[in-house]
Amino acid sequence: MKCTIITVGDEILIGQIVDTNSAWMAVELNKLGVDVIEILSISDNGDAIKEALERAFSQAELILMTGGLGPTKDDITKKSIAEYFGESMSFHEDTHRRLEAIFAKFNRTLAPAHLEQCNMPNNAIILTNDMGTAPGMLFTKEGSILVSMPGVPHEMKYIFTKHIAPLIFEKTKDSHTIFHKTIMTFGQGETFLADMINEVTEELPEGVSIAYLPSLGFVRVRVTGKGDVSVIKRVSFVAEQIAEKISQYVYGYDDEKPEECVKRLFTDRGFTLATAESCTGGLLGHRITSVPGSSYYYSGGVVSYSNDMKMKVLGVRAETLQQFGAVSSETVKEMAEGVLKLNNADVGISISGIAGPDGGTPEKPVGTIWFGLAKKNEETQTFKISATKDRLKNIEYATNIALGRLIKLIK
Amino acid sequence: MKCTIITVGDEILIGQIVDTNSAWMAVELNKLGVDVIEILSISDNGDAIKEALERAFSQAELILMTGGLGPTKDDITKKSIAEYFGESMSFHEDTHRRLEAIFAKFNRTLAPAHLEQCNMPNNAIILTNDMGTAPGMLFTKEGSILVSMPGVPHEMKYIFTKHIAPLIFEKTKDSHTIFHKTIMTFGQGETFLADMINEVTEELPEGVSIAYLPSLGFVRVRVTGKGDVSVIKRVSFVAEQIAEKISQYVYGYDDEKPEECVKRLFTDRGFTLATAESCTGGLLGHRITSVPGSSYYYSGGVVSYSNDMKMKVLGVRAETLQQFGAVSSETVKEMAEGVLKLNNADVGISISGIAGPDGGTPEKPVGTIWFGLAKKNEETQTFKISATKDRLKNIEYATNIALGRLIKLIK
Repeated sequence: MKCTIITVGDEILIGQIVDTNSAWMAVELNKLGVDVIEILSISDNGDAIKEALERAFSQAELILMTGGLGPTKDDITKKSIAEYFGESMSFHEDTHRRLEAIFAKFNRTLAPAHLEQCNMPNNAIILTNDMGTAPGMLFTKEGSILVSMPGVPHEMKYIFTKHIAPLIFEKTKDSHTIFHKTIMTFGQGETFLADMINEVTEELPEGVSIAYLPSLGFVRVRVTGKGDVSVIKRVSFVAEQIAEKISQYVYGYDDEKPEECVKRLFTDRGFTLATAESCTGGLLGHRITSVPGSSYYYSGGVVSYSNDMKMKVLGVRAETLQQFGAVSSETVKEMAEGVLKLNNADVGISISGIAGPDGGTPEKPVGTIWFGLAKKNEETQTFKISATKDRLKNIEYATNIALGRLIKLIK
Repeated sequence: MKCTIITVGDEILIGQIVDTNSAWMAVELNKLGVDVIEILSISDNGDAIKEALERAFSQAELILMTGGLGPTKDDITKKSIAEYFGESMSFHEDTHRRLEAIFAKFNRTLAPAHLEQCNMPNNAIILTNDMGTAPGMLFTKEGSILVSMPGVPHEMKYIFTKHIAPLIFEKTKDSHTIFHKTIMTFGQGETFLADMINEVTEELPEGVSIAYLPSLGFVRVRVTGKGDVSVIKRVSFVAEQIAEKISQYVYGYDDEKPEECVKRLFTDRGFTLATAESCTGGLLGHRITSVPGSSYYYSGGVVSYSNDMKMKVLGVRAETLQQFGAVSSETVKEMAEGVLKLNNADVGISISGIAGPDGGTPEKPVGTIWFGLAKKNEETQTFKISATKDRLKNIEYATNIALGRLIKLIK
């Protein structure tokens, strides 16, 4: 089954929001064996919506459309779909009752714009939305399906999961297979990884392809198979061969995030972790705690942005800061050891650097970032990177490097 | 000038990466007065690439294409463009010299795949890329321009800024204007804001339109004008009228982020800030420090994930934790006051809650999040929200609420 995703909204075309909905749907559709052939973002414009529908119906059996269903004046998706099908609209009593019930809960009454949300094209099948005011709508045309959903991510996800996924599952269960195996690596670039596994990728078996997906510090190597179910075996075989050749860089499989790997390794070993962050400002703590259950191994951290806090809470010595500066091997060593001691943890990690855009000097240019890695009963390691990106990317890169080194330390 | 953005890459269509490049380009193009009419994401497939080029050339004068220029086997954009134009390829000596120079710096030699990156379609104008190995390429066809760039964000941004923006500026400086004014609000939903400003939006002047862009806790109200330069005045007039009607919810303009507003207000007043985070795990610190210059007012924070840390570093009393629990008004009060005292700051804010998916109880379900707001010489405030989303969204929502309340406190 082929699918086109259409997102409607000027806010995407002027870059005011990033379209995360499409990636989420693509992942879910992929699991269901649906091939997303195109993602099309268009403006809140009737002609553009109708032209996009025409294009999508000509090439896909499933069209998922998000956005433009809100109660405000710029939302014209529903009207444009009705025009595309040449259908008029009627007031949908059930939707009205649902809206009244939602508003009654909060002791509020419906605004006139909400009543407008109850008008539906006559050929629409209404998909209930317990997460918001605009329901989804399903239409069929010559065997193809069009679904229109709100653009609010958790509403779209609710309608997709409740109404659409079961429908697709029913339709596609006997057809072709798409199967991925992804090898997660840290510490080496894509070109050199590609060279190391050249022998395997030169002669890939039928239906199997390979892709490299680099992100700051990490590269995902993805093996994909398309065909009948026998392709699963071939994908697994290729993935095993690859993982063997680059084993020193592999930390996990199938989109395990670095922070998930850290959690797995630390909880497996029964180790606890504490963090001391300066230039990353809390992002390392956030990444660690974004994984459910992180409280079992993560005791906490200090965002020691000021020197005062480095000294008072982490016990960094004034002389160290004075002699070597806050961005130095000596300071991150004391930070890592300080936060380990403070939390009585097994491992303490520290980061101090110059994220930019200001604060650089000739000896310590923007992007100079030091790390300290303290482990109970072992000598503390320190190391430095020279990042060359903008402030936010330098912060993200440093956080990735920290996670990668925690993985290396425990592995 | 109309623009189509084309992103090439299976990784987008299977949802493995989110397309942030398009939003960035859209913002920059918008500033230059270019209208992005469509964003099209397609797979690493020669036919799809050629068909997309055909479509784009039929509707836009500027086509920006990213992705598929890497050194690995799945990268076929360059070859497909050459086929589209019916051109062959030649070895580009200058690109080769640049690559050798980059690799010499790191004491590495070129892999065979890198040599392949030096082959260029004969009709391409090469756009140098100091951030990576693949240069950009510019093509012209019947007065329209096609630019192909790498998908790696900082490489794309470099080529766009260095080569493309000046070119567009030169071409569009005399033509039509697009002008936006965005009003940033906190604390009220879009439908009710829409009702409050209904009088203004009922009769918008010519060429002016309005859009509501909600995100967790915040709503951006965007006024857009298209036409000749006189539209700027009309947009400003409408924006002023709107801002007046909803003034109690307005915190800033033109995409000022909440964390940027917090920085502005705190540095204006000369106040310092300290944070004590539990369930948000460092995200509040990260958001605050993502703004350059935050060290002038932010002294730092504590990620007191464990009770031990709440007591040892922040001075929360054991009895408080025992009697009321970590997620309670009493605990966040002591956390906020503790971190204020620890940093001798003017304001201390604390967050403690149950982000989920586990850890909820009937009295304190998942999504229960308490906040404490301590200000020197004033009584500490505490308040609670009930979030209903998934772990990451609850963390983000809580962080937004904290930023919004810091703004309210100082305004």
